Amino acid sequence: MLATVMHAPGDVRYEERPEPKILAPTDAIIRLTATCICGSDLWPYRGHNAIAEPLAMGHEYCGVVMEVGSAVKTIRPGQFVVGSFCISDNTCPHCRFGFQSSCEQREFMSGAQAPYARVPLADGTLVATAAMPDDDLIPSLLAASDVLGTGWYAADAARVKPGSTVAVVGDGAVGLMGVLAAKQMGAERIIAMSRHKTRQALALEYGATDIVVERGDAGVAQIKALTKGVGADSVLECVGTRESMQQAIHATRPGGMIGYVGVPHGVELDGQSLFFSQTGMLGGPAPVRRFLPHLMDLILTRQINPGKVFDLALPLEDVAEGYRAMDERRAIKVLLRP
Amino acid sequence: MLATVMHAPGDVRYEERPEPKILAPTDAIIRLTATCICGSDLWPYRGHNAIAEPLAMGHEYCGVVMEVGSAVKTIRPGQFVVGSFCISDNTCPHCRFGFQSSCEQREFMSGAQAPYARVPLADGTLVATAAMPDDDLIPSLLAASDVLGTGWYAADAARVKPGSTVAVVGDGAVGLMGVLAAKQMGAERIIAMSRHKTRQALALEYGATDIVVERGDAGVAQIKALTKGVGADSVLECVGTRESMQQAIHATRPGGMIGYVGVPHGVELDGQSLFFSQTGMLGGPAPVRRFLPHLMDLILTRQINPGKVFDLALPLEDVAEGYRAMDERRAIKVLLRP
Repeated sequence: MLATVMHAPGDVRYEERPEPKILAPTDAIIRLTATCICGSDLWPYRGHNAIAEPLAMGHEYCGVVMEVGSAVKTIRPGQFVVGSFCISDNTCPHCRFGFQSSCEQREFMSGAQAPYARVPLADGTLVATAAMPDDDLIPSLLAASDVLGTGWYAADAARVKPGSTVAVVGDGAVGLMGVLAAKQMGAERIIAMSRHKTRQALALEYGATDIVVERGDAGVAQIKALTKGVGADSVLECVGTRESMQQAIHATRPGGMIGYVGVPHGVELDGQSLFFSQTGMLGGPAPVRRFLPHLMDLILTRQINPGKVFDLALPLEDVAEGYRAMDERRAIKVLLRP
Repeated sequence: MLATVMHAPGDVRYEERPEPKILAPTDAIIRLTATCICGSDLWPYRGHNAIAEPLAMGHEYCGVVMEVGSAVKTIRPGQFVVGSFCISDNTCPHCRFGFQSSCEQREFMSGAQAPYARVPLADGTLVATAAMPDDDLIPSLLAASDVLGTGWYAADAARVKPGSTVAVVGDGAVGLMGVLAAKQMGAERIIAMSRHKTRQALALEYGATDIVVERGDAGVAQIKALTKGVGADSVLECVGTRESMQQAIHATRPGGMIGYVGVPHGVELDGQSLFFSQTGMLGGPAPVRRFLPHLMDLILTRQINPGKVFDLALPLEDVAEGYRAMDERRAIKVLLRP
């Protein structure tokens, strides 16, 4: 089959790859209905992460089960499924604690920017719908696989509650999903930091009450001004740079929480500063599996429309153009149809 | 009057000082029934914090109100009061959020190792008892002023819940109070890290179920062994060194929380490590005022006995010996009677 391989920064190819096979009795093979490009795929694309060998790209996925291994009990061929980018057994102590992204058997999904993919630990990782979903729901179901679940986790980790004041650092797809999640959790005020018109518009549509276009100290000053000098109860850090983390820390009220889901690159934290600012923090790869049944239900009952975050859809064979569009910020997030 | 002044590391003197006076209409003057030496007083005593000018020592206190300023509404002369080491108005947005230790008018108490002390923002800072307490309850009420409230905050910030598995790093007075707090909050398992027989005994009396004598990696390995490889749900970091913080981080399960109350000295945290370990953190100077009414009630109804943490009581004039005893770890915590 033809699938997506990254050979070097900026060098993404759609080329011949072996078709996936059942390797372990707990595996499933799925035919992708849709897949997409993640903001985190841009780290190696931009040379921020080393590429030791060609990478089979793609970790967001939904589709139809083609085959399952002999030990798979609940997932069956023919089902439509969504899975997390973190492979988990959903039975170990970490999974039962709600942190499937630290599963004792954790693997990170790869090779999903392809017509077919192998999903390990299928029973633990995949969630099936009762029936084949309407086609217009596919983008939203795909979003649940990572970007929605990650924004949701950021809001959960930052302890957004009814009535909360929330600030969202980062206007990428995850940040926008963080806005949506905060709204669903009952936040009263949602301040989105964005300087891009189209992203601002989507943030407002998803529930943002205020837009802050300034960054750094000026952005923090704006948030302080909007909150009578107090700061936000909950801050969602959806970027992962030193600058964005400092922005998040300074925008958080004492005793408030930062949920950080941007993979930190070059972020060092000073213990004494965090101590005296009383900034709470919880982050990491999102335990999407914890939220997946609820999120899929919200989507299937059309209560949320996270799929709007895909503002460019391409045939899978044009994946290289998809990377370019996201790298150049021409697109928020690119959906790929095999 | 004679009171306690630190002139240099290791140089604590009981010497003539001016009697405190009402300086602001919101002040109160109290006669100290008891005061004590804090673990944090040892930072300058040991030369870890610079001493720019002679320091009027002491920030833990309980006693009888002698005089109040013209704007004080609820506190009256003759009342027995306990106050937090953090001065707070208890009305600003941070106070109402439960973080009185970040009050917009915050000051840190000083000069309480003395017969008399001035307490600013008396209405916000002090909590009065309904009647004069029995003398045997004085040590416990004094403990509520800082060390109990701080251990309690560590457990609260670390989200100890009924059934939790808790690890406590540090067997000083705050760590021991953390054990007591975790027990009160319904923790099922409380692992105290201590290598000192008398402190181990007190930890067990306060509710510890397990003692770990090892430190560093070996200590972490012991906690992992006691928790089937999972780690603790909640970790109370009650020291503040790089080593103790690393121990806390590695002992926490993914998604678990560290409540850190030891003032961090030389603690740098790597964002990416914390991200992938999914370690939650919240710390800072304890908002003792939030907990004070509840803690005083537990003490006055004799449900807890935090005062046992004082294993040496001295007349205030022997304060220098008190510092030596704590510095040399001959005493866990020293109570001083003016």
